[in-house]
Amino acid sequence: MKIPPVKGTRDFYPPDMAVRNWLIDGWKKVSVRNGFEEYDGPIFEYLKMFQIKSGDEIVEQLFSFKDRGGRDLAIRPEITPTLARMVNQQINSLPKPIKWFSVPRLCRAERPQKGRLREFFQWNIDIIGVDDVLADAEVIFCALDYLRDVGLTPDDIVVKISSRKLLAAVLKEIGVPKESLDSLYALLDKKNKLPPETFEKMLNEQLPDSEMAGKIRAFMGLETISQIEEMFGRQEAFDEIVTLMDWLNRMGVGDYCKFDPSVVRGLAYYTGIVFEIYDKASELRAIGGGGRFDDLLKQFGGTDIPATGFGIGDCVLSILLEEKGLLKTRPQQLDYFVACVDESFRDAVIEVTMRLRSNCFASNFSYKAVKLSKQLKQASDQNAQKCIIIGEEFKDNQLLVKDMVAGEQKTIEVDKFFAELKSLV
Amino acid sequence: MKIPPVKGTRDFYPPDMAVRNWLIDGWKKVSVRNGFEEYDGPIFEYLKMFQIKSGDEIVEQLFSFKDRGGRDLAIRPEITPTLARMVNQQINSLPKPIKWFSVPRLCRAERPQKGRLREFFQWNIDIIGVDDVLADAEVIFCALDYLRDVGLTPDDIVVKISSRKLLAAVLKEIGVPKESLDSLYALLDKKNKLPPETFEKMLNEQLPDSEMAGKIRAFMGLETISQIEEMFGRQEAFDEIVTLMDWLNRMGVGDYCKFDPSVVRGLAYYTGIVFEIYDKASELRAIGGGGRFDDLLKQFGGTDIPATGFGIGDCVLSILLEEKGLLKTRPQQLDYFVACVDESFRDAVIEVTMRLRSNCFASNFSYKAVKLSKQLKQASDQNAQKCIIIGEEFKDNQLLVKDMVAGEQKTIEVDKFFAELKSLV
Repeated sequence: MKIPPVKGTRDFYPPDMAVRNWLIDGWKKVSVRNGFEEYDGPIFEYLKMFQIKSGDEIVEQLFSFKDRGGRDLAIRPEITPTLARMVNQQINSLPKPIKWFSVPRLCRAERPQKGRLREFFQWNIDIIGVDDVLADAEVIFCALDYLRDVGLTPDDIVVKISSRKLLAAVLKEIGVPKESLDSLYALLDKKNKLPPETFEKMLNEQLPDSEMAGKIRAFMGLETISQIEEMFGRQEAFDEIVTLMDWLNRMGVGDYCKFDPSVVRGLAYYTGIVFEIYDKASELRAIGGGGRFDDLLKQFGGTDIPATGFGIGDCVLSILLEEKGLLKTRPQQLDYFVACVDESFRDAVIEVTMRLRSNCFASNFSYKAVKLSKQLKQASDQNAQKCIIIGEEFKDNQLLVKDMVAGEQKTIEVDKFFAELKSLV
Repeated sequence: MKIPPVKGTRDFYPPDMAVRNWLIDGWKKVSVRNGFEEYDGPIFEYLKMFQIKSGDEIVEQLFSFKDRGGRDLAIRPEITPTLARMVNQQINSLPKPIKWFSVPRLCRAERPQKGRLREFFQWNIDIIGVDDVLADAEVIFCALDYLRDVGLTPDDIVVKISSRKLLAAVLKEIGVPKESLDSLYALLDKKNKLPPETFEKMLNEQLPDSEMAGKIRAFMGLETISQIEEMFGRQEAFDEIVTLMDWLNRMGVGDYCKFDPSVVRGLAYYTGIVFEIYDKASELRAIGGGGRFDDLLKQFGGTDIPATGFGIGDCVLSILLEEKGLLKTRPQQLDYFVACVDESFRDAVIEVTMRLRSNCFASNFSYKAVKLSKQLKQASDQNAQKCIIIGEEFKDNQLLVKDMVAGEQKTIEVDKFFAELKSLV
């Protein structure tokens, strides 16, 4: 019986797995050097965990199920609710600020499309306990520290930055009723994903008059703080944005960053700086995004503690890196391949191979005592750096070691060979 | 609103995550040095994937759900069906033998108990395309290469080895009808998990007469091949077991291994050598187990190709390692903590920190310009190896670098400091 994989999921054959490991190891390395500690939670949580933050709309996008006790559970579509739960559980004993990262596997019950799968990996970093905009800058720096490290330049990507405080103030200035804000954020977030007419139509439906819609569209099209000041007056949120931009310049990543009031982020829970990372050509979905969410931990039954962070998924990022020729594969290598001139030395092959492995050297051998030339072909196919050839000289306790790269070979006494290896480890 | 985690799942706070990473990185390292390549599949598959191999009984132990198209899916309780699917999909292009490993996250809808959770990690290695018992030996060696590496000795653990072929031959000799075999394997596998009376009662229910039950119990209690030969005559499967034991001795792990006919493995699909790894004191469940499954890929709609492998979960292993004092944590370290003598140097702190990070050095700083002594305390709490103190000498482009371990400190020019760092990377 032949069964296909589920649409929107991926099989990671060894070459694909090598790419995934390269990507995720890079995320981990940069997180650690930026002072973040790794955490993880369960792949499933109570369904209601995901409703608190994102409302009932999220339920459709979840894989939910019941356990044998009839409890409603769901596979996590994001890790932030788990983060909030975990931090709240140990809020008194955890040293502050909390700087944590995670690289969770996440699932969403969506229709698969380019850059959007039903199962993916996401790099998350969060700083909890710092209300200073410096923490928002550090979060953006950390994302760019990785993206720059893999070779993306300001010609390839841009971080578009805005502020929920600014947006809320402008919407208030325009006269949008406070109770419309949450649903309006979700709509404004879709501006660049919807055809202009559809967006305009939906915007007009949500607002009491079309003049408001026009002002909002105008605001989202502005490019500088002075333009906003001219149109909507001086706003308190300006200072924070200016300070953030100043920090990003000092941190050496200012050339990647741009103020852009069209950045909204769809979810209701953002409270301050928001940002999204895009390919410069704007041909792909957002590579990632984040912002400040000072009220979330309280919403999850915890204390009032500020927080800021981001998430970057592996799908869009991989597409972009592939397009730019920056996706690195790390084909697996062997330190040694152990071959023999004929079947009579097979026991020796096994003994030497296992001894090499126990001494931490990646080693392999051929199960069948095929011709030596065929064994050497296997060694080369498996990227062996060196080959040990066991033949007549083994009776005098000697091994023939061939360097597969330089082509040189030498004979060495077995005990001496292993003594030298041990000194290398 | 406060929501608890789901019972039988684990939260990995940074110290727990460090242990999990240590464990899984160890599995990966040993797999690679034994010549295995990493693969992974999706966390969910079609539900029927899991029914093929393990029958309908497994459905109760699964978290299953429907997607929006009404398709029946399930979170994987094991990765072997995915392995079979993936190998079958590319059987013609994959070089043989296939030596693959994986460290999947798995879920089972079980009642949580000691060593058995609803979510866990499992180390899997498999060799596909080799019918030689040497491959079974290599699989067992690989498990022991890891277990020995972390410090477990033959006084701590034992690999109990038997053969399905031998068991099938003996059961035939005793007169057990062929159609009873599959359900009998499942029962015999539970021998050591059930109270003796319960086991005896269930065994008698499955067999036409109690004499048979007695003979089976006697067989499972034997300790050597010669005892079996005496009671049930010479069996073809003996040779294979003897050869396996000989290979394990040659490989240097014979002292961990023991022939034990009570090892059955519950699932119907094993066809040859089977084994289970236990703590020597027999106080815990099996640490892991595996064996040969030559018919499985064919059952999944593929060609007839031999296979052998094992799975070791993280739960029982962690309990044992903890008991033996062998569970290592790797607390995260910082290369540098950047402090300042007063707030006027805060910009410099940020600039130097970010430059260190971009040069691949793990670095941190204090968000608040607290007293220097308090900053140094933070540095020490975060395991910083060195501390950079920015003060008056920074105006002359000098940094004070303090070695937190040796206690020494020196002043160095900023550019010279970074030039030296670059030469280290």
